[in-house]
Amino acid sequence: MDGVRREIRPIVTIADFRHIRARLHAHIRTTPVVPCGRPNVFLKLETLQHTHSFKVRGAFAHVSQLVETADKRTILTVSAGNHGLGLAKAAATFDRSCVVIVPRSAPKTKIDAIRAYGADLRVEGSSYDEAEELALRLAGDVKKYAFVSPYNDPFVVLGQGTLGFELLEQLPHVGAVVIPVGGGGLAAGVAAVVKELRPAIRTIGVQAEASAAIYHSLKAGKMVKVPDVPSIADGIAGNIDLDTITFPLIQKYLDDVVLVSEAEIMGAMNRLLHHEKLLVEGSAAAAYAALEHGKVKSDVPTVAIMTGANVDVMLNFSSLPL
Amino acid sequence: MDGVRREIRPIVTIADFRHIRARLHAHIRTTPVVPCGRPNVFLKLETLQHTHSFKVRGAFAHVSQLVETADKRTILTVSAGNHGLGLAKAAATFDRSCVVIVPRSAPKTKIDAIRAYGADLRVEGSSYDEAEELALRLAGDVKKYAFVSPYNDPFVVLGQGTLGFELLEQLPHVGAVVIPVGGGGLAAGVAAVVKELRPAIRTIGVQAEASAAIYHSLKAGKMVKVPDVPSIADGIAGNIDLDTITFPLIQKYLDDVVLVSEAEIMGAMNRLLHHEKLLVEGSAAAAYAALEHGKVKSDVPTVAIMTGANVDVMLNFSSLPL
Repeated sequence: MDGVRREIRPIVTIADFRHIRARLHAHIRTTPVVPCGRPNVFLKLETLQHTHSFKVRGAFAHVSQLVETADKRTILTVSAGNHGLGLAKAAATFDRSCVVIVPRSAPKTKIDAIRAYGADLRVEGSSYDEAEELALRLAGDVKKYAFVSPYNDPFVVLGQGTLGFELLEQLPHVGAVVIPVGGGGLAAGVAAVVKELRPAIRTIGVQAEASAAIYHSLKAGKMVKVPDVPSIADGIAGNIDLDTITFPLIQKYLDDVVLVSEAEIMGAMNRLLHHEKLLVEGSAAAAYAALEHGKVKSDVPTVAIMTGANVDVMLNFSSLPL
Repeated sequence: MDGVRREIRPIVTIADFRHIRARLHAHIRTTPVVPCGRPNVFLKLETLQHTHSFKVRGAFAHVSQLVETADKRTILTVSAGNHGLGLAKAAATFDRSCVVIVPRSAPKTKIDAIRAYGADLRVEGSSYDEAEELALRLAGDVKKYAFVSPYNDPFVVLGQGTLGFELLEQLPHVGAVVIPVGGGGLAAGVAAVVKELRPAIRTIGVQAEASAAIYHSLKAGKMVKVPDVPSIADGIAGNIDLDTITFPLIQKYLDDVVLVSEAEIMGAMNRLLHHEKLLVEGSAAAAYAALEHGKVKSDVPTVAIMTGANVDVMLNFSSLPL
């Protein structure tokens, strides 16, 4: 299903990550790492990234590869939202045509933003899995479409991994990194960079209990299908390809994966808003929730990746004097 | 009304600011300066400062001076919220007693936070002006109380000015700075530092039309009293002392002051939330509104100071799949 994937060699060296980082330099913000009210905890604010999500890193990595290799096919993806948004922006930047398929459950704020970049947006299926089925059918036409998986794609993994360099530079004394895990593109990329450069740093993934494919697959020693139900952390929900390239990277580079409940994620969203004044989406809150509930210890300086801020939200300014 | 003020010489040199900056170093975060969706516009995120407001800078500057001079009086202030919150934190840090008087119109989020620091909080008067009257009566007992004005105080001005150094270091090519103005402590301090070090940088103040004492005083060439009505930008509302030390500094160091309407401020709050994913209070939104509505041009790299994020707000998760 992925014409591009087969053409390139496996991700193995830190040099691949460095190469992609240099290529992305003009298109990606180096987002701040800030302290917060919890001792020893720092937050990497990808909420302030272009498109308000880290996903734009992987998207630019893949699209700029298509540009480099003069591959002029229509870019195609399926995405709960942020990956589609990142691809739409990358496609617009390089003036490429782009089809984004999203499930009906995707937040309106993400759908509107994808449309605003001029992508051909198609809302199909009631879940990510259903939307993916349609996308894969289209992707079969490999002459017409360059399918870009949100996670099962070496360039996407390389792009997300660029965040790892920034962590090491911005917080040289970092001792642990907490990474939300859906398909595992971010976790595979960041953990690979961090562990290759600084093996002593702990790398911990966080999944929603409601949708914990990687967690259960690690226990099983191989990728397994799991029941999944909708999660407030929509960005890390849904089953993932059984042959995903992220799984062996996660097996090698992640020290642990922990689970958080929907109530814990929702509580973390509220506390990040009220105590840290940060608006984050559920996936980001999952990382914070793992720290709040002691599932990840912050006995060393610990960075939680605030992956994005694209959540439908209304503010109630009831107390204002107007 | 201010026993401390008379004891020290006027603010004149950049050395005073540097001295205070060194003293504050352990207590103040260097907050990020980030780009945003508007070309050439950067945001200084004091929303991520301790207490989620820049006011903690001036508060620590004054309280650490009391500590240095072994002045053991009870700290007293009147504050729409953020200055009181900063003083409460500074007092708690140095284990000093502290009375904070706030008007009934102060946002609940600020009142709760002040209480949490253990300050003796008194909610009095329906407006800032009424609360101030009571505070000044108490302040008459100079043996018992060390009154710390939110703006009419040299240490407060020196403390707020420390933000100016950060701007020049974080964005060396900055060409203009946009500063919300209430009593003018932040504007006086930041503009003084910026202009003393880099006279070519433009310094522009922003006030709410509803409460524009400094704007009208600059026109009049002297401090004047103006009618003021409640503003969504509660942090920069209220009349100010006719003898405020900030006025001559603002006359000398601010190039211009512009006005924004309540609707413009509210619109900016909403757009900062939805387009930049930043939660800010009205005072901060005022600076952004001035840029949005062309009252300040961003033809050079321009920093708008996002002064704080202490606004009462509720999240509405209506679109989430739970």
